[in-house]
Amino acid sequence: MVQPILYSLFREGRVQQLLELVKELHPADLVDSLHEFSLEEQERFFLLIPHEQSAIIMQEMEVPEAAAVLERLPVGTAAEILKEMYSDEAVDILAELPKERAAKLLTLMKEAGEELKELMAYEEDTSGGLMATEFVAIPENLTVGGTLAYLRKVAPSAENAYYIYVVTRDKKLVGVISLRELVVAPLETRVGQIMHRKVVKVPEDLDQEEVARLFEKYSLLVLPVVDKEDRLVGVITVDDVIAIAKEEATEDIHKTGSVTPLRTSYKSAGVLTLYTKRVGWLLALVFINLISSGIIAVFEETLNAAMILAFFIPLLIDTGGNTGSQAATLVVRALVTEDIKPGKWFKTFCKELLVGTLLGLTLGTAGWLLGVFRGGALIGVIIGLTMLAIVIIANLVGVVLPFILTKLRLDPAVASSPLITTIMDALGLLTYFTIAQIFLSLF
Amino acid sequence: MVQPILYSLFREGRVQQLLELVKELHPADLVDSLHEFSLEEQERFFLLIPHEQSAIIMQEMEVPEAAAVLERLPVGTAAEILKEMYSDEAVDILAELPKERAAKLLTLMKEAGEELKELMAYEEDTSGGLMATEFVAIPENLTVGGTLAYLRKVAPSAENAYYIYVVTRDKKLVGVISLRELVVAPLETRVGQIMHRKVVKVPEDLDQEEVARLFEKYSLLVLPVVDKEDRLVGVITVDDVIAIAKEEATEDIHKTGSVTPLRTSYKSAGVLTLYTKRVGWLLALVFINLISSGIIAVFEETLNAAMILAFFIPLLIDTGGNTGSQAATLVVRALVTEDIKPGKWFKTFCKELLVGTLLGLTLGTAGWLLGVFRGGALIGVIIGLTMLAIVIIANLVGVVLPFILTKLRLDPAVASSPLITTIMDALGLLTYFTIAQIFLSLF
Repeated sequence: MVQPILYSLFREGRVQQLLELVKELHPADLVDSLHEFSLEEQERFFLLIPHEQSAIIMQEMEVPEAAAVLERLPVGTAAEILKEMYSDEAVDILAELPKERAAKLLTLMKEAGEELKELMAYEEDTSGGLMATEFVAIPENLTVGGTLAYLRKVAPSAENAYYIYVVTRDKKLVGVISLRELVVAPLETRVGQIMHRKVVKVPEDLDQEEVARLFEKYSLLVLPVVDKEDRLVGVITVDDVIAIAKEEATEDIHKTGSVTPLRTSYKSAGVLTLYTKRVGWLLALVFINLISSGIIAVFEETLNAAMILAFFIPLLIDTGGNTGSQAATLVVRALVTEDIKPGKWFKTFCKELLVGTLLGLTLGTAGWLLGVFRGGALIGVIIGLTMLAIVIIANLVGVVLPFILTKLRLDPAVASSPLITTIMDALGLLTYFTIAQIFLSLF
Repeated sequence: MVQPILYSLFREGRVQQLLELVKELHPADLVDSLHEFSLEEQERFFLLIPHEQSAIIMQEMEVPEAAAVLERLPVGTAAEILKEMYSDEAVDILAELPKERAAKLLTLMKEAGEELKELMAYEEDTSGGLMATEFVAIPENLTVGGTLAYLRKVAPSAENAYYIYVVTRDKKLVGVISLRELVVAPLETRVGQIMHRKVVKVPEDLDQEEVARLFEKYSLLVLPVVDKEDRLVGVITVDDVIAIAKEEATEDIHKTGSVTPLRTSYKSAGVLTLYTKRVGWLLALVFINLISSGIIAVFEETLNAAMILAFFIPLLIDTGGNTGSQAATLVVRALVTEDIKPGKWFKTFCKELLVGTLLGLTLGTAGWLLGVFRGGALIGVIIGLTMLAIVIIANLVGVVLPFILTKLRLDPAVASSPLITTIMDALGLLTYFTIAQIFLSLF
């Protein structure tokens, strides 16, 4: 929700009222309103409000947006703001800044900077790259009452307060208890007696897609990350996971269109990036297309003898491509979401053989009618039969190719709509001319 | 993780050990292991273990799986298990059962059944259909200590304990406080003094996609649902939202392949469902394809005069389709995720004009080389120029169509790969033959 009043208060220099509105608004709504500010105005805005508040707001901004503002602020101010942020958010923003600037800020942040430097060493799309170092850890022999008193003292912030981790003296993770369980337990009980000893946890280098899968499977709010010695080094919170799910979906969708995943938003991708992410596939498909051209060349005589055949080329090869795209889209998504297991290819094959036959009969009938109408009985039979054959073949190619790719340990999404369309052009033309040649020579 | 030992304990009838293992395993892992059981064995398994445990396990199963088992169990047992479930999960399973069976179970569940009946009246993919009725609500004048004592008494379960809602005597929602804030507040403070009065809440009929967007925007764990009188009627928890994000992504991906969203998993979709979700688009595309056929018919003479032109048809029209698919895939996804705003069409248009020109120059060069190689200098120029023109046009069609669809308040995803491919066939052929006719008549 954009609050136009924020901008007017700012423009009119009514600082007192502005500060009060900032305190009152949800930071996510505040970010919406900030989009009305120019970059230079945003800079002045963040100089007006307290660092703590700035940190909360910048955490809600898109990372490149927050980095752009932070880059304009005086280094001292920027360092203070970064100190107030969650470590996972601070790291994301620092990674977006020019190297020199980031290094300077880390030095200014002293101890906090050292900690962030360690976090920055992790790959961005792994558990280590997602985790924050803010968490509550207690020893096993603390009582419930003691733990509650400790929580009152440290007053943990929202992102990390719902699970309390139990660690040994050398920081090994041995258990977990939720704040809910803590609150309803007798005060004198030792945490070690009521904690869960089986903790769902992940190593530092797990892929983010796998992290998201674990969150979904175990309905987690927080997932602890441990190092090779089983020491607790950070936690991943569920709010990051919703963003991952969206990011992974975008990648999968880009793949279905034969675009190499951008790994950045479309808005912030430059012309050259977009070009390089697309040109490879387009050129590769050109070469596959030469097969189709070759088939036309081979059957040039057949085509010359009955130019009416050319009329139906786009119709037939496109229907093949469309049918194959549909089947591949369904199967690739089902494989990616583990809706069907890679081993179940035969069952899927049989199911789609039926679906393909039904589709083939429907479209074959349509093709037959169009053929009769445009070229008479014989052409009708040729087009109808070709349509039937192409639809069934295309459907099976769309089903089988993703399974083969999975079997070869390749990404099934390589079976994109453009690839299937291109393959089906070649197979479609071959089918068409073969059927046409047989019938034309017979009658 | 599948635990083969579960199945062997079950097969060998070692009930005591089985019950202990069930208590120890995470229900999500237990569900994995249950996949080794036949339906009949699952039925016997759930008759062995306590109802409470059955409820926890079934909540982790896929809804159709849980429904299949529940249908086989004696009605009395099934009713007891359903009573132990969260209301949102119970409703989903009941909706999957045959109507008569569901009605019988609801009657057997008495009061609990009445409550579920009310929940079942909501549309499945709205806030009302997602919410559970388990939540903690307290009056404003209760103290922090009093609230903690109340929580100890009701011992809320995991799904709903992290936010405590503050309501008036007639159940109107006036505030919220998190368990974390409660734990760190002085015991004698009244909740009304420290609660947040601005609560992010939704009406009962909000679309689930919008619900997911709010969760992401405000980094929520729980979202309260209110009726028209602002009374608190339920809560939606974040674990449901991750599932929604996946579901919505699947729908979007199906749309890119011109498949009407299945609204069920691929695995459980029957042959006829798959047929009906696909045949409409395929037939519609056949009719658009007739335009391409018509264009070939119009230019039959040109084609007859230079049969070499037929050789390049698949290459040229496919490259157009592929380029357009890529552009449409990028733009549709960016619009759906609000990465680009519908108003920013001109900026995107200019950006893609540049990208398209670069792609066109690359592919045009490839086309020129292929043309020279196969048909000499003149054909080279025709193919090169056509390729350049088609790629630029296709790119712009792929960009503009999703914006037009959005402007017409239609789903931008209608600009699917098959639709763009089919449109580009017609435009590609028209471009090709026009350029060819000009150059062939000139030289």
